[in-house]
Amino acid sequence: MDFNEQLVRYADVIIQCGLNLRAGQRLWIRVDVNLPEAPPESLRLVYTLIERAYAHGAANVHVQWRDQSSLLAQLLHAPALEHFPTWEIDGAMSYINQGDAYLSIRATNPDLLTAVPPERMRDYQVKIVGISRPVNEAISGSAINWLVVGMPVTGWARRVFPHLSDSDALAALWQAIFAVCRVNEPDPVAAWQTHVHGLMRRSAYLTAKQYSALHYRAPGTDLRIGLPGGHIWQGGSAQAQNGITFVPNLPTEEIFTLPHRLKVEGTVRASMPLITTDVIEGLQLTFKDGAVVEAHADRNQALVDNMLGMDEGARRLGEVALVANSSPIGQFGLFYDTLYDENAANHLALGRAYRLSLEGGQSLDEEAFKAEGGNTSLIHVDFMIGSDQMDVDGILFDGTTEPVMRGGEWAF
Amino acid sequence: MDFNEQLVRYADVIIQCGLNLRAGQRLWIRVDVNLPEAPPESLRLVYTLIERAYAHGAANVHVQWRDQSSLLAQLLHAPALEHFPTWEIDGAMSYINQGDAYLSIRATNPDLLTAVPPERMRDYQVKIVGISRPVNEAISGSAINWLVVGMPVTGWARRVFPHLSDSDALAALWQAIFAVCRVNEPDPVAAWQTHVHGLMRRSAYLTAKQYSALHYRAPGTDLRIGLPGGHIWQGGSAQAQNGITFVPNLPTEEIFTLPHRLKVEGTVRASMPLITTDVIEGLQLTFKDGAVVEAHADRNQALVDNMLGMDEGARRLGEVALVANSSPIGQFGLFYDTLYDENAANHLALGRAYRLSLEGGQSLDEEAFKAEGGNTSLIHVDFMIGSDQMDVDGILFDGTTEPVMRGGEWAF
Repeated sequence: MDFNEQLVRYADVIIQCGLNLRAGQRLWIRVDVNLPEAPPESLRLVYTLIERAYAHGAANVHVQWRDQSSLLAQLLHAPALEHFPTWEIDGAMSYINQGDAYLSIRATNPDLLTAVPPERMRDYQVKIVGISRPVNEAISGSAINWLVVGMPVTGWARRVFPHLSDSDALAALWQAIFAVCRVNEPDPVAAWQTHVHGLMRRSAYLTAKQYSALHYRAPGTDLRIGLPGGHIWQGGSAQAQNGITFVPNLPTEEIFTLPHRLKVEGTVRASMPLITTDVIEGLQLTFKDGAVVEAHADRNQALVDNMLGMDEGARRLGEVALVANSSPIGQFGLFYDTLYDENAANHLALGRAYRLSLEGGQSLDEEAFKAEGGNTSLIHVDFMIGSDQMDVDGILFDGTTEPVMRGGEWAF
Repeated sequence: MDFNEQLVRYADVIIQCGLNLRAGQRLWIRVDVNLPEAPPESLRLVYTLIERAYAHGAANVHVQWRDQSSLLAQLLHAPALEHFPTWEIDGAMSYINQGDAYLSIRATNPDLLTAVPPERMRDYQVKIVGISRPVNEAISGSAINWLVVGMPVTGWARRVFPHLSDSDALAALWQAIFAVCRVNEPDPVAAWQTHVHGLMRRSAYLTAKQYSALHYRAPGTDLRIGLPGGHIWQGGSAQAQNGITFVPNLPTEEIFTLPHRLKVEGTVRASMPLITTDVIEGLQLTFKDGAVVEAHADRNQALVDNMLGMDEGARRLGEVALVANSSPIGQFGLFYDTLYDENAANHLALGRAYRLSLEGGQSLDEEAFKAEGGNTSLIHVDFMIGSDQMDVDGILFDGTTEPVMRGGEWAF
């Protein structure tokens, strides 16, 4: 299939299966891109999306470009990180308040910001997360239909395919994205509908079970994660407050809920590197009463310590997610981007829990949400723990255990 | 001289001679660019500017990217032009109200928007000019130190050098910009200071003369332009309301003032094509009592009619500018961009007059400004009339005439 046809199919999957853009709805696209590394054929995705969105009846499409190299320059050279474009936050809130659809395109170089000193990076993250809070809360609370997708740039492609030339690596990364996004299926939109249906069936099954805890076993891992009463498993699609059913990530292979912030016990070993501003390898965490009491990394321990020190909730879990080890992404290997890699294997997240994961969670204030077991934090950082050697049991309220996963695959 | 050294010199001329950025001042950069046509070496200007701005003591630099291809898609495909990011205007006003410096970088393809139907383009221009009015008024009123400069993109370079390959054309356009911006002088900053001083000396001389009218003669041109009492000739640098002296355009070769909106009589022929959304060739205008009563173009007459029909002030003059025909830009030829081309030759502008061109103009309301002879309009469109065959006389209040230009060169 030729690249342009794949691009149109990818755009249609994004608009129809991901956003589920309604005729007459406005679309706001934010492109986080490292501009000097974005060749015209990558940018063409944006223009194809605009055209397809209008073809599907969009009332308007506005594209906001945010350049990673301009940000890098600020991080490296600004005498103090005091000035942020808060009017961009006002702009984002105006789209959200109007009920517009939101598409986030990630086209960044995972290695670009490693030149920034860690304390400086932490200073930036604390401030930007604080400023962006209303937007992040509205989006994670699904005020509107939203979606995150990827677009290759050279530095990212080079990281995934270090032995290829830049242009071959870009082409290979496009093909990998097309593959895991089911773009080459005879009918990609239908393939997504079937797949999303499967994820929703499993979510409904686990939600009905209301396990009091999950028990994970694998080499280096023996972890028991309590689940709060009223937890909801979600996966595939979600329902936005504007009434539209959408799929917030493409690709998506996971189903997830929230753990109880005080009820995590035992040790877990990451099965893949964790990418933040640099690559954290060999992460191992020990929990007691829900909090990390011991943290070790073979590489970039300082980044782990920084992350755990962000705030009180950064030491606790906010998400537990299940992914079949045979998922297309798990088969491919590392994309060096959480959007993809979190769909490669079972994972957990440190930090903020999603209120939508708890029955009635949307209407609780922060204290009430915490009292129910929901974690709050400025951060939400996923790390992979799954492998083909992982077994997961569900523990019912009467103490009976049932198999949830065996050897990394679904057991129900 | 190597390209990187030229780039740093260009950046320094922009920051020191153009903006006159103060240590501790924030800088807001808006890049209007056609992204698919901007190679990494062009984008490097932006990053060089950021670095040099910090080196000169900037407190912060924020870059806002506006992509011409995204705009084109909206203009071609949106069912109605009803939705604009007004929050960007709020953002711009927040920078202006803080007293930040503003740099506008133009890196657009002059041919890209020709695909948009003229009525659609006119609809867009009326709306965007209306929405942007507070920003345009604050900037043209020099609320802060601001500057417009150019950055090559492929389509623009191809237009200027149609017989070169894309990469050779880009390189040639860079060199042309460096040349007319005096970047290759032994000390570019000193060369600009001398040049700007000369423009200011001529401005002061003409302001002191207080000619009641100018009389233009050239093949196809016999035009008498009345000047209102209290008119001020400006050129080179201007004084911003934040107290900073700056040069609002780089390059700049012109000195200018405002004509009396009711006192223009005769015929004028454009000496160079006028570029709006397309190229208007052979423009000829006849004025009576200040208004265009006859307009002809050899090519794209419809664009002229559209422009003149924008509003009542679009048929009247808002600027009269003098440029020595021997200016480096006049010697180069057409850049197909008003920023450069208006510095190639004597020119006039249809539409809005600058309040700073009239003594006390800043404090007048619209009606009072018009009563003094100042024109108001949504548009401000320059067109070139100068050549080496043009003579200009100044007419004193007693009717005496004095030579201002002879054969396109200064006569004083």
